[in-house]
Amino acid sequence: MSRALTLADVQAMRAKTPGCAQVVHFNHAGASLPSAATLDAITSQLRLEAQSGPMEASMQGTQAAESARANAAALFNATPAEIAFTSSGSAGWGMAFAALGRWQAGDRILVGRHEWAGNLATMHHVVDAAGAHIETIPCEDDGTVSVRALDNMIDSRVRLIALTWVPANGGVINPAEAIGDIARRHGIPYFIDAGQALGQMRIDVQALNCDVLKGAARKFLRGPRGTALLYVKQSSLKRFAPPYVDVLSAPFAGDTFSIRDDARRFETSEVSTALLCGLSNALAEAREIGIDRIENWVRPLARNLRERLAAIPGVVVRDLGHAHAALVSFTVDGIAAAEVKSELASRGINVGANGVAYTPLDMQARGLTDIVRASISYLNVPGEIDILVDAVAEIAASSAQRIDGVRECIS
Amino acid sequence: MSRALTLADVQAMRAKTPGCAQVVHFNHAGASLPSAATLDAITSQLRLEAQSGPMEASMQGTQAAESARANAAALFNATPAEIAFTSSGSAGWGMAFAALGRWQAGDRILVGRHEWAGNLATMHHVVDAAGAHIETIPCEDDGTVSVRALDNMIDSRVRLIALTWVPANGGVINPAEAIGDIARRHGIPYFIDAGQALGQMRIDVQALNCDVLKGAARKFLRGPRGTALLYVKQSSLKRFAPPYVDVLSAPFAGDTFSIRDDARRFETSEVSTALLCGLSNALAEAREIGIDRIENWVRPLARNLRERLAAIPGVVVRDLGHAHAALVSFTVDGIAAAEVKSELASRGINVGANGVAYTPLDMQARGLTDIVRASISYLNVPGEIDILVDAVAEIAASSAQRIDGVRECIS
Repeated sequence: MSRALTLADVQAMRAKTPGCAQVVHFNHAGASLPSAATLDAITSQLRLEAQSGPMEASMQGTQAAESARANAAALFNATPAEIAFTSSGSAGWGMAFAALGRWQAGDRILVGRHEWAGNLATMHHVVDAAGAHIETIPCEDDGTVSVRALDNMIDSRVRLIALTWVPANGGVINPAEAIGDIARRHGIPYFIDAGQALGQMRIDVQALNCDVLKGAARKFLRGPRGTALLYVKQSSLKRFAPPYVDVLSAPFAGDTFSIRDDARRFETSEVSTALLCGLSNALAEAREIGIDRIENWVRPLARNLRERLAAIPGVVVRDLGHAHAALVSFTVDGIAAAEVKSELASRGINVGANGVAYTPLDMQARGLTDIVRASISYLNVPGEIDILVDAVAEIAASSAQRIDGVRECIS
Repeated sequence: MSRALTLADVQAMRAKTPGCAQVVHFNHAGASLPSAATLDAITSQLRLEAQSGPMEASMQGTQAAESARANAAALFNATPAEIAFTSSGSAGWGMAFAALGRWQAGDRILVGRHEWAGNLATMHHVVDAAGAHIETIPCEDDGTVSVRALDNMIDSRVRLIALTWVPANGGVINPAEAIGDIARRHGIPYFIDAGQALGQMRIDVQALNCDVLKGAARKFLRGPRGTALLYVKQSSLKRFAPPYVDVLSAPFAGDTFSIRDDARRFETSEVSTALLCGLSNALAEAREIGIDRIENWVRPLARNLRERLAAIPGVVVRDLGHAHAALVSFTVDGIAAAEVKSELASRGINVGANGVAYTPLDMQARGLTDIVRASISYLNVPGEIDILVDAVAEIAASSAQRIDGVRECIS
């Protein structure tokens, strides 16, 4: 199905999504609204397990997991053997990072300024004591990671390049492919955090030239919380030994334990089969709709929202760069992001509010303390953009009045 | 409620467990049957998240998680700060093991012969390359880990004692407290795998003197698959740094990332809140019933099953030791465990069948290739024991006939 999504297509998908009738949801970057079918895939498996015995009902789960693996591989332009399911993006990224082995004094890690704090925490936690360094790649004037600057930083001590492709605090799309070209040219492992890309834009690991890529399923992909995808390139797998294994990842083989040679070396035998059934359905839905069609629906909506927010007095759009994903970040003069979020929530509108803690390098570099984040899915319709813009305008006007009131008191 | 459980109590709990009407379940050591209330706790949270937005519905989940943590702490005689929830027992044990730091040539790990293969795999995976050794503690004649032998093995190179308290392949209860006394006396870290103890017998981490204890919730505790409990002793926490962290376990604190000082340093920010709601309910149910009352119900049933199976010609009960938990292991002459399991399944009876791979040290030491495992919960009633015994007798008789037939052909 290659024709573009129509409003009727979207309305039909909204009708099959219970949350769309309840809330105006612009927090797909936090966690999206699952379809009724995804919800049903989880609860059906749970009921089946409760009735026949959980282990006895495993067959359906195994089939769902394999279907999920095939769909995830197709979504990434990878092979199923390169896909692991983990319980969180952090667990996947953290285990892959641990798999890089020991760090020495003087080793260097180059990270984009938009790197997610969880990854930064893991890097510091592991390498600081060894005397290795984590260095931020400078940005271009437009706030994207500078490919040129990165190229100039490369030397033989660089052991990892880490990029958060689309950050948690805005719509900027970093030049992930160009960075991958440099990583490949120098043979440096390259990790991509695709948490905010997964499910809203095309992810082609061949074009990206990455060794590792991860993303939680609960965001734009509309999968269950507690599930995440981890891609590890086939040729890197042998070198990447996870920090721990078990009966699935390193089964006993007669006289020793033999570690798997596929990405499931990063999985454990225990898993919520029910959540995997939900993940499988979410992946099948995303593939059926088509990522290009999703991208073509959400980008113009996000652009429209960005332009209209920017036109509201007292509102500043905070998205960096020129190429933008379906996240719109903004601030409202005189009112904290958490308060804007709470004001919108009281009107039935869900958005996110991020402080410094999730993307500290970028927020500190820009002197920002917090931002409001409205993220857009193919479930969103133009009428919802109107509702959000009107509400933000109201909140901004009311804040401006308060500011004026305070000024009058002072003067 | 300190009086013993009556058949009426058990029937009432069975009536609130959908699976009890469908199957004769003796696979609680694989995964037990959840109560309708536990199932409902999960699905209600999933529905709420689908309707209001997953992140927006987090409040209920947070409350459930904190209640689960308090109940788990009470169940273990620990403090809530010493309890982490992980996605699997392996993940918890593996991260705690990784937290022991680097291994040197000559370092020693002493393990019980019943150690779960997943733990052995992790130990070999990590320490073999360093030239450290994993040594099996000899057993007493009755097949339990020998406390005396352990005491004789201790020297300054022993860096860990690891025990699987009740193994995956039978009812033996190892002397976990006496081993803990030795570990404490010598200041050696002590890890207990309580996977098959959790939910069927008292676990008192103070009496056990362990540093780490883990168990999956899906077994006798009747919690959801994909959830596990990890206990880490307060005084050990500071020394035990997990292999990776994230925004929950090491939040950004102004200019650096500060690792938590409680057991949640082993958790990640992403979690299935719905599964935690189920876990919370399962823990509350276990505490409400009372572990002592559970133990007093299951032990006599298991003893009865053991005695009656042993009386069937061609059946050999394989449980070691004198003190027995609610797992009964046996073999039937001339028929593989997997086939016995499948024969029983065709009669609506669920049991487990274990090969060498899950407890390789013990199975190989005893020359066993497989065992059938019938595990008993407080959900089981005497009438079900009759059904199981009759079915096994039938299968054994039919196998004996086949053997006789083959003998006649040969002679």
